[in-house]
Amino acid sequence: MKAIAETVVPSSLTRDLARRAPVLSSLAEVVAERAPGSIERRLAEIRSFLEDDLSGIESDLQSVERAPTPLHASVHHLLGLRAKRIRPMCVALAARVGDGFSRAARDLAVAAELVHNATLLHDDVVDVGDKRRGAPTARLIYGNAASIFAGDWLLVEALMRVRRANLGDVLDRALGVLAEMLEAEALQLKRRGRADVSMDEYMRVVRGKTASLFRWSLFAGARAGGVDEDACARLSSFGEALGVAFQVIDDVIDVEGDANGIGKEVLQDLREGKITYPLMVALDRDGELKQLLSAHLESGAQTLDPETAARAHRAIVESGGAAEARSLAERLVENALVDIRPLPDKPAKGALVAVAHAVVNRRS
Amino acid sequence: MKAIAETVVPSSLTRDLARRAPVLSSLAEVVAERAPGSIERRLAEIRSFLEDDLSGIESDLQSVERAPTPLHASVHHLLGLRAKRIRPMCVALAARVGDGFSRAARDLAVAAELVHNATLLHDDVVDVGDKRRGAPTARLIYGNAASIFAGDWLLVEALMRVRRANLGDVLDRALGVLAEMLEAEALQLKRRGRADVSMDEYMRVVRGKTASLFRWSLFAGARAGGVDEDACARLSSFGEALGVAFQVIDDVIDVEGDANGIGKEVLQDLREGKITYPLMVALDRDGELKQLLSAHLESGAQTLDPETAARAHRAIVESGGAAEARSLAERLVENALVDIRPLPDKPAKGALVAVAHAVVNRRS
Repeated sequence: MKAIAETVVPSSLTRDLARRAPVLSSLAEVVAERAPGSIERRLAEIRSFLEDDLSGIESDLQSVERAPTPLHASVHHLLGLRAKRIRPMCVALAARVGDGFSRAARDLAVAAELVHNATLLHDDVVDVGDKRRGAPTARLIYGNAASIFAGDWLLVEALMRVRRANLGDVLDRALGVLAEMLEAEALQLKRRGRADVSMDEYMRVVRGKTASLFRWSLFAGARAGGVDEDACARLSSFGEALGVAFQVIDDVIDVEGDANGIGKEVLQDLREGKITYPLMVALDRDGELKQLLSAHLESGAQTLDPETAARAHRAIVESGGAAEARSLAERLVENALVDIRPLPDKPAKGALVAVAHAVVNRRS
Repeated sequence: MKAIAETVVPSSLTRDLARRAPVLSSLAEVVAERAPGSIERRLAEIRSFLEDDLSGIESDLQSVERAPTPLHASVHHLLGLRAKRIRPMCVALAARVGDGFSRAARDLAVAAELVHNATLLHDDVVDVGDKRRGAPTARLIYGNAASIFAGDWLLVEALMRVRRANLGDVLDRALGVLAEMLEAEALQLKRRGRADVSMDEYMRVVRGKTASLFRWSLFAGARAGGVDEDACARLSSFGEALGVAFQVIDDVIDVEGDANGIGKEVLQDLREGKITYPLMVALDRDGELKQLLSAHLESGAQTLDPETAARAHRAIVESGGAAEARSLAERLVENALVDIRPLPDKPAKGALVAVAHAVVNRRS
């Protein structure tokens, strides 16, 4: 195992690593603009620390069956696009808090990413999504049918790997997490067309849709690494908080990244039962906006007129919801770091701390 | 265990049983018109023999989680409709060839039916299906999104039950069967828009889409019943043949049951990559029809003109494909019966023979 402390990576080497493993560089890139240089450097160190693990994971992801069918083409279209691979990274780091990155840990890391990609394939059909990871969605290229079956197939492929890892309760928890993720989707479907949402409802969806898989990733890695029950529980709890923070920041990025589009998309989001943290705050503080949007939803309007869209946009930006979301994410991560403080001081533990900071400070 | 030999069920009692457990009576009803009275009587005996098992299964199916969301509503809409429950019946009978219908066997029987229903929920989205089991499809009532997530959720619920049954290779095979089912869907997607199909291609799809789950149902029941390796293999092989026969007869029912619609639907089926046995035979023997349909597919035509539809219909009916399919199904079942001949002479074995005959002689 390479010790992070010994690895001071100059920025030229960072760029070089990025060229050699483009997928793995993306988390560093997305924080580069905003975060202090230290986070960028730390992430480069983590990539270097996990280089072998991540390239093994990537190799497994790219070698899932490649038959000449629209199903397999859909799978490889999505898996071939540059992505953060943060869930597998979490599995690898948790495993390295223990005995290291074994074959079982690698299977579990790959499984986490496959589950995530399975949900993306189904989500893009459900949301009629046209773009994903900067490219046309698989459903746009190969059709909805291929995307639906490809998602099913990735779930099965993921579970086969979890089964192969042969760590009893890791499989049970994987099934439990899948159920949680789908219950969260169910909750979202249930609240389609409503402009009111409680913090409690928002958190239930975020925990189910995003945090549960992060929690499982840390737990699975910990089990594969053979750490004790207490450390497993601490890493799980860290994963859960990290996942919520990740989603909350995602919501902020949605608002900040699409300053022009946000007003227009509000109606569509509410029609799909989706709610972002900043929108939730805006609706909570601006009763008039809530009434306005409720009326639009009830009338069955497909789009907001430019004036109302601008009104919604202004309300979201001015509500302070984005700043509040960043502050919530920071608090979550700080608490999560307290959770793992008692773990042995291994490089992987330091890397988890850096990942947590990177999640809060990322811009995409 | 009740002995079938002792149970001579008068027809009034059959009707009474049917009233008490309407779902369970349907396999007898669907063969009643065509088959000799003996099959109808035998099925009534099987229902009586399996009465407790089937009502336990039904009770489990109706008690999967019932939260007030469109996902759960979709699930219960489909599970609430009258269905044959032939896969759980197979699990129960295979278990009764061994030590009997244990809690594990019941979980596996329920899992088989849940997997089947999961595929129906996704298939109806993919095929834009409006009717299922004589009722509007769940996707028509609750939307595509609910149907997709409901299918995912049922898969997970099924696997949780397989896991709970805790019979090592039964879970591995369940995952293998799911992969087979999806590979068959992939094959179908791949051949969308083509009017040519080989017997080999047809059989690969049928084995994957239908026979694999029948095979698993018999295997899972056998394992739960604790029968030896040889008997497990025999029952699996019986299940595979039964499944192919079941699908081949399904194809015939499609042709015979919808004499007016069949010509019209040919183009849509080919566009979706679907092929029925009678259509395959017609295309094989009628080169002109194949060319005609290929040309329509290439032109992107959405429907067949009435003349071509009538032409296709005539070709399918007159090709003798339906009779050939029935004869293939009969041969498959005869061979399957040879497979299980060496098994101990228990009532469940006799019941499997009757189920096999019923599958070949059913009309819906």
